[in-house]
Parts: sequence; structure tokens; C-alpha cells
Amino acid sequence: MRQPYGMKELGRLIEPTSIAIFGASDRPGSLGLRALNNLDGYAGRVYPISARLSELGGRVYYPSLADLPEAPDCVVLAIPAEAVEPALEQCAAAGAGSAVVFASGFAELATPDAIAAQTRLAELARRTGLRVVGPNTTGLANLATGAHMGFAEFPHGFVNRPGSIAIVAQSGAMGLALSQASEHGASISHVLTCGNSCDVDVADYISCLAESPHAGAIALVFEGLEDFGRLRVAAHTARKAGLTVVGFKLARSSEGSVAAASHTATDTGTAEGFDALAAETGLIPVTDIEHLLETAAFFSKVHALPGMPRAKGPRVAIISSSGGTGILAADTASLFGVALPQPASATRGRLVAALPAFASARNPCDVTAQATSNPQSLQACAEALLSDAAYDALVLPVGRGLKPAQLDALSAAALARGKPLCIVWMSQWLEGPGSREAEALAGLCLFRSMRSCFNALAAWRSRD
Amino acid sequence: MRQPYGMKELGRLIEPTSIAIFGASDRPGSLGLRALNNLDGYAGRVYPISARLSELGGRVYYPSLADLPEAPDCVVLAIPAEAVEPALEQCAAAGAGSAVVFASGFAELATPDAIAAQTRLAELARRTGLRVVGPNTTGLANLATGAHMGFAEFPHGFVNRPGSIAIVAQSGAMGLALSQASEHGASISHVLTCGNSCDVDVADYISCLAESPHAGAIALVFEGLEDFGRLRVAAHTARKAGLTVVGFKLARSSEGSVAAASHTATDTGTAEGFDALAAETGLIPVTDIEHLLETAAFFSKVHALPGMPRAKGPRVAIISSSGGTGILAADTASLFGVALPQPASATRGRLVAALPAFASARNPCDVTAQATSNPQSLQACAEALLSDAAYDALVLPVGRGLKPAQLDALSAAALARGKPLCIVWMSQWLEGPGSREAEALAGLCLFRSMRSCFNALAAWRSRD
Repeated sequence: MRQPYGMKELGRLIEPTSIAIFGASDRPGSLGLRALNNLDGYAGRVYPISARLSELGGRVYYPSLADLPEAPDCVVLAIPAEAVEPALEQCAAAGAGSAVVFASGFAELATPDAIAAQTRLAELARRTGLRVVGPNTTGLANLATGAHMGFAEFPHGFVNRPGSIAIVAQSGAMGLALSQASEHGASISHVLTCGNSCDVDVADYISCLAESPHAGAIALVFEGLEDFGRLRVAAHTARKAGLTVVGFKLARSSEGSVAAASHTATDTGTAEGFDALAAETGLIPVTDIEHLLETAAFFSKVHALPGMPRAKGPRVAIISSSGGTGILAADTASLFGVALPQPASATRGRLVAALPAFASARNPCDVTAQATSNPQSLQACAEALLSDAAYDALVLPVGRGLKPAQLDALSAAALARGKPLCIVWMSQWLEGPGSREAEALAGLCLFRSMRSCFNALAAWRSRD
Repeated sequence: MRQPYGMKELGRLIEPTSIAIFGASDRPGSLGLRALNNLDGYAGRVYPISARLSELGGRVYYPSLADLPEAPDCVVLAIPAEAVEPALEQCAAAGAGSAVVFASGFAELATPDAIAAQTRLAELARRTGLRVVGPNTTGLANLATGAHMGFAEFPHGFVNRPGSIAIVAQSGAMGLALSQASEHGASISHVLTCGNSCDVDVADYISCLAESPHAGAIALVFEGLEDFGRLRVAAHTARKAGLTVVGFKLARSSEGSVAAASHTATDTGTAEGFDALAAETGLIPVTDIEHLLETAAFFSKVHALPGMPRAKGPRVAIISSSGGTGILAADTASLFGVALPQPASATRGRLVAALPAFASARNPCDVTAQATSNPQSLQACAEALLSDAAYDALVLPVGRGLKPAQLDALSAAALARGKPLCIVWMSQWLEGPGSREAEALAGLCLFRSMRSCFNALAAWRSRD
């Protein structure tokens, strides 16, 4: 088995200082133009290559790779399938570090010719040391540097804060669908997709991100791999680096595997094999793809907490302003085997002092609807529970938006104790007031699903 | 067992022509003022009752129930617990039809006195025929008439269209959390909550809604009941009326049941008992509360489809512009035992004609990323699959927003064939462009979870 690539092999791909584009174009809608426009925010050097154009819109075009002033770190190939192989040979000969191949029409066609063509690309990569992404890929984006080597509408801009997530996806469309979470406040550092994975695959991306300063956790979605052993090694590498990988595996069923054959034509393995790999390496599996990012953000934030305690359980307190949501939290804790110990007697005293008689000064703690008219009561109870050594984390279901000042105070209380406060957003106004603020605060972990929250808490383990 | 109430018993509660408020107040934040303000959009007659006020802000206040010009259909009691019983006696004596009791401090306290006090309210209701909602409730709202007898911030306004949902919730906070889906376009006809349920309970609401012209489906969330047999009868009644009940049961675990004791103090039964009731009555259970409304909206729309075929299976076609999302759909269909037959040869011919060579002219049908630059291709394939008698429904995962014109055309195609087209919103921009439009169109059923979509499809059965 080939070992996963690290920053040594992929540095010129993930953090390029110069990018060339084969097939750069001024034709509206063309992949070449979309790739070129995606580099608008990039601080590195950009070299559009076109036999037809020499200058357009203030950009200098180069007739060929040989005419560039330097060997580019990455070359984007927005050209037809039949032109790919000779272009990659040119890239390797010119000393380029990496290449991204958009073209479809390789192994996913499942014809002998197309499979052989892809095999030749893989051999070329091995022989020359040129690192090749694709074919049949939308490319990748490093949002921290603005290096976007692809034609997808991935988000722009990155603020380095707790909760940041690197998305690693085989499918470009999946990467795009996930990355749109940035529209409601998710912090995305990278969107790395790889399509048919003739050379660079999701395991390589993970291994390389373990050396990146920007990734806080990895959200992985993929269907197949050349070698699952490489993913095992990469997941171990990430864990050693303190980087949690949260994963969703596609093509778990035979129906899905058949569909995958005509998508990226990689070996999908078995669902059981992936689950075993996850259990062995500490990769956190999710059962629903819509839980992927919030789970990754949880681990990203937990990892950044000051003096984070080693969770052994973990033991959780629930606080709610509605009995119904407290019951749901208790049900879900039970489902995931998460312990809900009762508070220490000193804590109980603080709860009783802060609550009306008809509230519940226990775990789950129901502060009742009075919390809406008296936010101090909720805050006092949250602080009492966070201060109790019996608890590793606090869960707060929220049925309607909280005010920014309330969220700030709750986040500060959580940070002061070095424990995560999980907000479960029960309001079906999914992007309603307060959700963006909660997502951005270092002490708060936002979930839009109770099941997703307790799945993450149950998976949270001491990571030494 | 008492039979569930119907419109005969609850008409004056659900569709009142006059509403009185005990404890009407001008004090900011008071429940009395909030209840009064909630009636701003109500066309019926409103009678605030106050010993202190006589006229304020253009409103005439009445000193007592006896001074009203008529016996009100409903009386809202925004008064302390100890004042409730005599006030209810007055309501009954005055010929009021129903009453809503906000006050906490009854059976949920679990003290002998408080339990006895609630028992007296229940007996009063039985003896007098006054229908009593609560105690310990936020009340109920009929959004079609603007009759809101409660203090919660339930939404205002209702447009009668396919996809409308009546929310029935024991917990007011749950009702509120769910009803906020109206902010992103869900159509909510009623929010009916009942708290401790000393008289009117969720089964009564369901039975009564079966006679309402506005409810398209019912979304039920509750923890306990006096008598599960009543829910069984009500669910049968709803089904006979063509009204699907989608339900989420709280307090499934022993931990949740303990928490429920101090919330509404109703008998929570067992999870198995509820599941058996669901299977027997055709009530559709969901495993995640965030799936509740989209599942109810699916059944609401399916019920309104012209010439809806009787689904026997059902048999589903998948169409995607991304192989990855198609694989996920196939995986999830397999998980729920939903059949994905291959298209008839004529259909296959139509798909081949509309697709490039590297696309998949099968089920799942992957139209590839070209669908983004050529929407006609997606539309042609959707029409081919919807026209094929092999299919009862079409599933379309969407990784990024669709344009309104595209959504209109897809909805029209679905309506023309009388088959639902399920849009699975894979984009994590949860309320992004197109989602509101998709939610409003009669031919499209919007899901934000693949699992939720196939759970609904699997549960979809011939309903005669």
C-alpha cells in the first residue's frame, strides 16, 4: 500500500503560490472561465494559458506552459478528456507540482478504453511525482488563502475561529452542498474534492490537513477508495495531530454501490468495514449527512476549549426552558447511553435559589417559561450546572431565538469552565435570530438535531 | 373510556365567534396583555375582563363575566392557580363554551393538594360540559380565523394551500418551536396545545381537526395521555376523513418519563404501546422531531394531488445532478425497503436522448453537473420518469438552489401526472434560494433529510 501523502507531497497543491490554468477562456459558462474567476481573491500568481487569447480584461494569457516565468505549483486542466494525458506530461516535464483534472469520461464510464485511460493517468502520477487530482472532479479550495483550483461555487473567505471545518469530499456536488453552510455562519477552511481519485484521494487530503494550521476538524464524505488501509493510516495521523475526522460513508448498500460504479468508479468496500475502521481509528461516524458539519464543528470547538477536561463518559446536564424539550433530551441521552447524573447538593441549592417552585431543580433542569421573561434565572442555573464537577458538558434545547447578549453570557460561562455548552436548536426557523451568533461563539456548539447532539457527546472521548 | 370530542363538543373552542379574557391587563409582559394582543387579527368579538380597567387603548373592559353582552364561546384565564376553580364555575354558569387555563401549579407539582386541585378541574369539566384546556398550557391558535387563545408567539396568518399542517402539541414550547417553520414558508393552519390535559387532550384535537376544512395533515408531538385508547379512536377518525397524522412521541425512555412527571404529569405509556397504536391506526411515526413537519407536509400535499394513484410499495425513481446524492438516495431507499425499479425501455430511450454519454440513463438517473447549465435536460428526464407507470413518485436531491422557473416547471410536471416530486434539500444553506418556493408548490414535497424523505415514502400507503 502507498502511504498517504502529507504536506511534503501535497504542499504545492493545498498551499500553492502559483496556479496555471489550461483551457482558460472568456466564454461565459465555460469551466475555464469559472475556474479563472474563482481565483479573484487569491494572492498568489495566476497564469491563464490559451492558444487563442493573449490579453483580456487586464489579464495576460500565455500561449503554453513553457512560456510561464516559473514552474507553477498547480495546473488546472479545464480541457477535454482526450487532451488530458499529454497536458499532464507537459506539467510533469515543466516541473509543476500538481494538477487538477476536471474532465469526465474515464473509469466512471466503465468501458475498457476509459478505464485504461485512467490507469495511464495514475501511472503517470506515480512515475513523474506530479500529484494529480481527479479526473472527473470539481477541484479544491483553500479558503484561508483563496487558492481555489476548481469551477464550483465554493464559498469565499475564512475567519480562523474555533468551530472551523475542513470539508473533504469525493463528490464535488456534495462538497458544494455542504460548503453552503457558510451562508448561515459555518466556518469552512477548506473544501477538498477529488472525484475519481486516480492519484490523490480523501485519505491523502486528511493526512495533509493534519499538518494544516487552519483545519479545526474534518468533515468527510466519500463513497470509495483504492485502498481503505490508506484511510486507516490517515485517520490515525489526524488523531495524533488532535484533529477529529467526522465521516459519512456513501454507497453503504448494494444499490448505492451500483450507482457509485458510474459515479467515481472507486472500490466502495463494505459498510461494516468502514464502521470497523471508524471504531479502530476514532473517526466519528454520523448516520445522517445533515449532521456531519455540526458534529465536526462540535469537535473543532471542544478541541480548542481552554483546559478541556478529559471526557470519560461523558456526563451531561440538561437545562431547558420547556419541559417538552427537556424530556426529548433525556430520551435521546438514554438512546445513546449518555449519563445524566443528578447535581451535587450545593448545585441543587443554587438551582432552587434561582428557580420558582414549579420548576425542576434536578437534571434535566426545567427553568420553565419564566426563562423568557427572566434570563438571569437561566444564566444562574447554567453557571451552577457548568461549575458542578459531576458534569462534562451542558445541553440547552432552544425553542425560540436567544438574544445575542444572552448567548455571549452563556458562551463566556462555558469557556470559563472549559466545558462545551451544546445548544440544540429546536426552533424550526432553522436560520432564525441567534443561530448565526451561537454558531460563531467559541463556548457554544450548535446542533439542529437532538440525535446529532447526543451522538456527538456519546462519541466524545479522551483523545490522548 | 370517554370518546374523543369532535367539532360538536369543541366547535366553540376551535372556531369561536367570541373570546373573553379573565386577567386582561395593560402590564407589559403579563400573560393577560400578551393574550389580548394575540387577538389583534381576530375577526370575532373580544371581551377583556378586568376589575381595575374600564377602557384602555380603544378597548372596552368589562368588570365581570356577568356584564358581557353574550355568553362567550371561549374564556381565556390569565389568572393565578388559586383563582382558576371559581372562575371556571363562573364560566360554566354563564354558559361559556370553553376555557383555557394558563396557570401552572397543578398535577405537575406532584403534591397531593396540587393533584387534587387538578382533579377538581377535571370533574368540573365533566359535570358542567365546559370544555377546559390546560391547566399549565400556553393555549391554542386557529390561524385560519385568527382566534388565538394563548400567550405564545405563534405565527399569524394562513394561506389555504396544499401542504398545510395543523400542529397538535401537548407542550406549548414544542408547539412554538415547530410553528416557527412558518418563517421559512411552511403553511400552518392550527397550533393546538393542551398542557396538563385535565379535559381536552391531543386525541380530542385530532378528532376535531378531522372535521376542519383547513387542516391538510396533522403534526402531533406529545408525551402522555389519560387514555391511549382515545388516541386510537381519534387516529382512526382522522384516517377515515383522509387526514394523515404524523406523530412524534416524547418520553419514550424511563429518563424521559421521569422528566415528564414534572412537566404535564400525564401517563406516558410505553414506547412499544405507541408504536403498536401507530401501526394499527396508520399514524405515521417519525424518529426525529425535525422530520415531523416535512413529513406532515408530504402527506398533506399527496392527499391533495389530482387523481392520486394508490401507492402500493411505493416504487420510486431517483434523479440527481450529482452522482453522490444519487448514491445517498439509493442507500436510503435500500435502508427503508423502498423499491427502485429500472425504467421501461421507452423511458430509457427518452433519458438517453436527453443526456450526455457519461450520464446514467437508469434509476438512479444521474443527469450530471450539466443539469446546472442545461435545465431542459433535467426537466426532460423528470418528465420521462414521472410518465413511466413503473413509478409512484420521483425523488430529486438538490445540492444548490433551483431557480423559481425550474421549480414551477417541475411542480407542473408532477401535478400533470398526479405524482409527488420529492425535493431533498442537500444544500446546507437550509433556507437558501428556492427552498421557500419549493415548499409552497403543490407538486413538490420538500425534505431536508434523505432519511426523512424515504421514511415518508415507505410509510405512504393506500388510504381507503
